[in-house]
Amino acid sequence: MLSFENDYSEGCHPKVLEALANTNLIQQPGYGEDEFSLRAKEKIRLACAAPNAEIFFLVGGTQCNQVALDGLLRGNEGVLTAATGHINVHEAGAIEYTGHKVLALPHRNGKIFAAELRAWLEAYYADPTYPHMVYPGAVYISHPTEYGTLYSRRELSALSRVCRKYRIPLYLDGARLGYGLASKRTDVTLPDIARLCDAFYIGGTKVGALCGEALVFPRKNAPARFITHIKQHGAMVAKGRLIGAQFDALFTDGLYLEISRHAIDMAEKMKRGFLERGYRFFLDSPTNQQFVIVENGQLERLSRAVRSSFWEKYDESHSVVRFATSWFTPPENVDRLMRLLDEDNLQNIKNPAEIDRA
Amino acid sequence: MLSFENDYSEGCHPKVLEALANTNLIQQPGYGEDEFSLRAKEKIRLACAAPNAEIFFLVGGTQCNQVALDGLLRGNEGVLTAATGHINVHEAGAIEYTGHKVLALPHRNGKIFAAELRAWLEAYYADPTYPHMVYPGAVYISHPTEYGTLYSRRELSALSRVCRKYRIPLYLDGARLGYGLASKRTDVTLPDIARLCDAFYIGGTKVGALCGEALVFPRKNAPARFITHIKQHGAMVAKGRLIGAQFDALFTDGLYLEISRHAIDMAEKMKRGFLERGYRFFLDSPTNQQFVIVENGQLERLSRAVRSSFWEKYDESHSVVRFATSWFTPPENVDRLMRLLDEDNLQNIKNPAEIDRA
Amino acid sequence: MLSFENDYSEGCHPKVLEALANTNLIQQPGYGEDEFSLRAKEKIRLACAAPNAEIFFLVGGTQCNQVALDGLLRGNEGVLTAATGHINVHEAGAIEYTGHKVLALPHRNGKIFAAELRAWLEAYYADPTYPHMVYPGAVYISHPTEYGTLYSRRELSALSRVCRKYRIPLYLDGARLGYGLASKRTDVTLPDIARLCDAFYIGGTKVGALCGEALVFPRKNAPARFITHIKQHGAMVAKGRLIGAQFDALFTDGLYLEISRHAIDMAEKMKRGFLERGYRFFLDSPTNQQFVIVENGQLERLSRAVRSSFWEKYDESHSVVRFATSWFTPPENVDRLMRLLDEDNLQNIKNPAEIDRA
Amino acid sequence: MLSFENDYSEGCHPKVLEALANTNLIQQPGYGEDEFSLRAKEKIRLACAAPNAEIFFLVGGTQCNQVALDGLLRGNEGVLTAATGHINVHEAGAIEYTGHKVLALPHRNGKIFAAELRAWLEAYYADPTYPHMVYPGAVYISHPTEYGTLYSRRELSALSRVCRKYRIPLYLDGARLGYGLASKRTDVTLPDIARLCDAFYIGGTKVGALCGEALVFPRKNAPARFITHIKQHGAMVAKGRLIGAQFDALFTDGLYLEISRHAIDMAEKMKRGFLERGYRFFLDSPTNQQFVIVENGQLERLSRAVRSSFWEKYDESHSVVRFATSWFTPPENVDRLMRLLDEDNLQNIKNPAEIDRA
Repeated sequence: MLSFENDYSEGCHPKVLEALANTNLIQQPGYGEDEFSLRAKEKIRLACAAPNAEIFFLVGGTQCNQVALDGLLRGNEGVLTAATGHINVHEAGAIEYTGHKVLALPHRNGKIFAAELRAWLEAYYADPTYPHMVYPGAVYISHPTEYGTLYSRRELSALSRVCRKYRIPLYLDGARLGYGLASKRTDVTLPDIARLCDAFYIGGTKVGALCGEALVFPRKNAPARFITHIKQHGAMVAKGRLIGAQFDALFTDGLYLEISRHAIDMAEKMKRGFLERGYRFFLDSPTNQQFVIVENGQLERLSRAVRSSFWEKYDESHSVVRFATSWFTPPENVDRLMRLLDEDNLQNIKNPAEIDRA
Repeated sequence: MLSFENDYSEGCHPKVLEALANTNLIQQPGYGEDEFSLRAKEKIRLACAAPNAEIFFLVGGTQCNQVALDGLLRGNEGVLTAATGHINVHEAGAIEYTGHKVLALPHRNGKIFAAELRAWLEAYYADPTYPHMVYPGAVYISHPTEYGTLYSRRELSALSRVCRKYRIPLYLDGARLGYGLASKRTDVTLPDIARLCDAFYIGGTKVGALCGEALVFPRKNAPARFITHIKQHGAMVAKGRLIGAQFDALFTDGLYLEISRHAIDMAEKMKRGFLERGYRFFLDSPTNQQFVIVENGQLERLSRAVRSSFWEKYDESHSVVRFATSWFTPPENVDRLMRLLDEDNLQNIKNPAEIDRA
Repeated sequence: MLSFENDYSEGCHPKVLEALANTNLIQQPGYGEDEFSLRAKEKIRLACAAPNAEIFFLVGGTQCNQVALDGLLRGNEGVLTAATGHINVHEAGAIEYTGHKVLALPHRNGKIFAAELRAWLEAYYADPTYPHMVYPGAVYISHPTEYGTLYSRRELSALSRVCRKYRIPLYLDGARLGYGLASKRTDVTLPDIARLCDAFYIGGTKVGALCGEALVFPRKNAPARFITHIKQHGAMVAKGRLIGAQFDALFTDGLYLEISRHAIDMAEKMKRGFLERGYRFFLDSPTNQQFVIVENGQLERLSRAVRSSFWEKYDESHSVVRFATSWFTPPENVDRLMRLLDEDNLQNIKNPAEIDRA
Repeated sequence: MLSFENDYSEGCHPKVLEALANTNLIQQPGYGEDEFSLRAKEKIRLACAAPNAEIFFLVGGTQCNQVALDGLLRGNEGVLTAATGHINVHEAGAIEYTGHKVLALPHRNGKIFAAELRAWLEAYYADPTYPHMVYPGAVYISHPTEYGTLYSRRELSALSRVCRKYRIPLYLDGARLGYGLASKRTDVTLPDIARLCDAFYIGGTKVGALCGEALVFPRKNAPARFITHIKQHGAMVAKGRLIGAQFDALFTDGLYLEISRHAIDMAEKMKRGFLERGYRFFLDSPTNQQFVIVENGQLERLSRAVRSSFWEKYDESHSVVRFATSWFTPPENVDRLMRLLDEDNLQNIKNPAEIDRA
C-alpha cells in the first residue's frame, strides 16, 4: 500500500533515531533540564536569531496550541483565527476546554489578512455591547496553513502591525513549519517569524521527529511560571531528553531544513505529474500538501492501492483529495503513484461515458 | 427621556412587588425550599402540562444557559446554535468558559431549521476525522429569537424529531418567552414546548420580574445532583424565596401571559405607527422587539429624546434600530414616539436632499 | 416554629423593601449603570474611606468568591485558606470548577495566622519540586469566620504584611461583615479592611438585603475587563438596580451597622441566657453566630419547636449546634427560646440519669 | 556523578529502543491505529486477563491521571485520595484545572484504607448540607504509593468493595506498577488489579520506556467518546506507534516484569547495605524507592558525588532522603554508593561529636 495520506506515517528520520540511540544510557535530570534539551534550545535560538528566546519542548501540536494559548490568554479572553484554523476544526474543542472562545475570521485559502483583522477589531470596539462579548486576546495563524498555503513576509508584517497596535499577541502554529521554510516560494525566514510573532512553535512530529514541538517565546516573554503551567496541563514530559535529543539532531547541520526541502521537491515532482495528466488543483499550494480534484470513481479505485486524505466534496462527482509528501517520501513512490493514475486512466478510457462525467 | 431601549428598564410589575412585600417577614428555609418556590413550581408544572417537571429558579438568562447547558453536556461536547444565538454573541463566552464549544449553524432571521441541522449532523458523521471534532451534545434555540422571530409548532416539531433521532437534547432559551406565547401569530404553547424540548427556561427578568428565570426539565430529566451543580456555578440563591415569590405571582391568574399580551399590543400599535409613516422594517417580528430601518441623521436627532438600541448598520446612510416594548410600556409612550417622528420629519422636510437620501 | 437556623430566613429589612418600591417604575439603564447603583457605590466608597474603590454588585456569596478569586488568580494559581473556609467546604467546589486548587492551612477557630502563612510560603519555596506544585496566588479569609470569630486589627495587619511581602493579594469574604463590624469586641473598621485587603465583599444577603453583595477593589485594582469577566461567569444582573437600590438603602443613615448591632445585641442576650442555664459554648464567638454544646436528646426534643443548625458532633452524647440571630430577630424570640430550654430542663429533671449524662 | 535520584534518569531499555528502530520506517496510520499499538493492547489484555479491556496509550503519568479522572468524573464531582497522593501534591493542580476538587483522606505510609473511606462516605451523607459539598465521584490510589508502599490483595479488595457499594469508580495510578508487581512482598497481580479497579494505568516512563503509559478500562467501561476526550485534552499522539511499539516490546517475553525485578533486586541490595551500616529507614518500602534517614552534614557531603532526592525534614539534624533504583541500576552503582558511605563515615569518625548527633 502506497501512502500519501499525511506526513506522519513513518517513525523518525534515521539521524534522529541515531541521536536517541547514542544518548540512551547517559543519565540526565528530568523535566527538560537535560543537556540535550539545553543544547537544542541554544541551536534553535541561533536559528531564530533570538538570543533571549525562551523555549519549551512539548509533545504534539494540539497540546502546544492549547498550552501556549491558555498561557497567552487571560481567563475571559478568546482567540481570533481563520475559520479553517486547526484550533477551530480539528482539535476537538481543546481551546474551548481551557475556557477560551475561538473567534472565526473570514479567510482566503486558510489565510487571514490584516485588513479583515483590523475591520473586525474596529467593529468590536464600535459595538456598544462589546463588554458582553469575548475580548480578542490573541491572534492564531498557521504557517503553512491547513491548506498548505504560506504568508508572505509582507502579509505577516501587516498582521503583526495590527496586533501590536491593539496589543494582541500573534501566535503562529508551525506544525509543518519546516515545509514552509523550505518552500521555493517563500520569503519568510525563521528570524522573520521570531521577530514578527510573539509566540510560535517549530513542528517536529510532522517534520522528521517521533514526537515533539518546540514552543518559542522569542523575546523572553513566556507567561509567568510557564513550567508549572505546562505541568498543570498534563503536558510535562518526565524524560524531556526524548524531545531534546531529537531537536538537537534536527537542528544540527541544517537537518531540519534539508529534510523539509526533500518533501518540497517530492511535492513539486508530484504536482508536475498531476498537471501533466490534466488534473486540476483545488488551490495553489507551495508546500508539501497538494489538494487535487479527483473524480469520485477514480478516488475509490485508487484508494485500493494508495492512501490519501479525502478533504471535502468538490462537486457532485468530484472530491478534493490531499496528497502529502514528507521528509521520507522516496521519489519512486511518486513514480508509482503516477503509474497507478495512468493505469487507471487507461483502463477507464474504455468507458467513455464515465470519462465524460469526470 | 422616552425609553424603548429594552424590556428591562423598570423594576417589576406591581403585583410582583406586592408578593415580595406580603411575604417579606415570613420565615422560610433557604435555597429554594421555601413555600413560595414550591407553590410557584406547582403552578408552572400545571401551565406546562408537565406534572413531572423538575424546576429550578435561577437569577438571569446567561446564567441559566450556562448552568443548564453545562449540565446537559458532558465534558467534551459542544452545543449547536444559530450563529446569531445569544450564547454565541452576547454572553462573553460563558459557554466556552465551562469548556464547551459553541458550534454555529446558518440561520434565517435568527432561526435554525431541521433540514440544516440534519445536514450538519450527517456531514459530521460522514467526515472520517470526526473523532477529532467536537461532538454536538445539545441544540440551543431561542424563542423568541434575538430578532424577535418565532418558531411555528411545525418547525419546532421538526427540530425536535431530528434531535431525538440523534439523541441530542433540545434546549430552548425563553428569556422573552412570555412575548412569544402572547404573540398573535404563534401556534406554539407552553405545553408544546414542554413536550418538544428537553429543557427550557421561562424568562422572568424581561417579563415583569425584578430578576429570575424558571429552568424546566419537563420529564424529570434534570442532570444528576443538579442542586450541587447550581451551587458549584455560583448560581444558588440563599433566599430562594426572592424568585419563588415572584414566579408565584407571575403564574397566578394568568398574570404572565396578561402582561406579555400588553407588550404585544403596544408593539403592534408602534409597528402600525412606523408603517403609516413609511418606515421599513428589517424583518417581520411578531413579538415585542421591532427592528426598524432609520436614517442615520434622524437616529442621531431622535436619540436626544428617545432611547433605542442600535442593532447593526443597514447601509451607508441607514441603521437597523431596535424598539422594544414591554409589560410596562404605556400607550402614551408610543404616541409620544410617533409625535417625535412627525416633528422630526416636518422639521427636516425643509431640506429635501436629506429626505431623498433617507 | 421558632427559627435560629441562620441569618437569611426572612426577606429584607423594611427600609430595603421600601427603597425597591419607591424606585420600582423609574426607567434606568441595565447592567449596573442605574443611578441607584452609582449612588450606592459612592456611599460605600465613603464608608470604606476608599475614594478610588471599584465596586461591583453581585448576587450571592459563593458567586462573589468565585468571580473575585477567578479574577485575582491567574490560570495556574491556587488560593490559601483555613481548612474550614467556606470556599473549601460549602461551595460545592466552585473555586476548583474555575480551575484553581484550594490550599488548606491549619486554623484556630476558623482563623489563619501570619506565622503559619509565612511558614507555609517559606516551605513552598524551600521545596525543590515547587514548580510541580500549585502556586499560591491569593489568600482567602472570612471575617467573621465560619465560626463567628473575628480577626483583630493586629492579626489582620500581620496577614496583610506577609501577603504584601510575597505579592499575594489578600481577599476577605464578608458574607456577615456587618455583624463583624458591629461586634462589641472588634477594633477592625471598614476603612481598616479597605486598607489591609486587596479585595473584599460587604455581604448583603445575610445582613438585611433580599440578595446582593458588594465586591470592593479598594485601590482601583479590579482585574482587567472585570465587567466582561462577571458576564462570562453568568453573574451579571440585567436589572442591576435590584442590588443597587438595596445597598443604597443599607448605606443610608448607617442602616447597615444599625441593623447589624441589633443582631449582636440579640446574640449577647441569647448567650447570657445559655450561660445562665449552664450551657457550654464550643468557642467564644463575638458575633451573631453562637455555637452551643447541646445534649443530643435535648437537641432532638427542641428541634420540634426551634430550628437551629447542627454543626458537628461534639462527643458521643453531645452536638455542637449553631444558633444564629440576625437583623430581624425580635427579643421575644430569644425569650421564647429560653423558656423552651427551661421547660425541657424541668420536664427532664424527672429522669436524673439523663441529666447526669447531659 | 552517581545517580539514585529517580527511576527516569536514563533513556529506555535497549529492547525498547530496538523495537523503535526495527519498526521505524514501516508506514502506519496515526492516532493509535498502528499495528504495534494494536498488538501491544492485545498483549496487555492477556497479561491483565481482561479480554474486553479498552486500552489507551498516553504520554505521561500526570496526563494519564488528568485525562482518566476527568473522563470518570462528571462536572461537579471530586476525587478522594490520600493527602499524599500525587494528584494532590505534585501535579500542579492538574485535576483542579479540569474542574474537580481533590478530597484528601487520612493515610498511613501513603495508603488509604476501607474503614476510613467508609467513614468519610457515611459522614458525607450524614451531613444535611451535603448538596453544598463536592460529591465524591472517584477514588484514587497509587500502587506503589508515593512512599513505595503496596496494598495487599485484601486491602485492595476491601477498598473495591466500599467503592462498589457506593458506586464510585476506583482508579489506580500505576506509574511504578512494574516495581509493585515485581516486589517480593506482594500478593497483588495484574489480573487482581484489573478485577478490583475500574480504571488504572500501567506505567512505562518509569519502567523502561522513553515515554508512555497504558490506561486500561478493564471491562469495556471507557467513558463515551474517549478518543475525542483525549484529543480535547491535548493528549493525543499523532504517531501513536511511538508508545505502541514500546509497550509491544515491554509486554513481549515478560520484559516488563523482568526489568522490574532487577530494580527490586538492586533496591534490596541497597537496603541491606544501608542496614549493615546502621542507617534507619523512614518506613519499610518493599519496592524500588527507599527512604533513608540521613544526617544533614553527610547528605551535603554525599550530594557532591551522588544524586538522590531530598524528601522531607526528619528532625533538626536529619533528612528523609529517597534513593531509587530502576530497571537500569547496575549492581556496581550500589557498591559504589556503599563505598562512598564508608569513606564518608571513616573520614568523619575523627569528629566524634558529629557522629553522636548523627
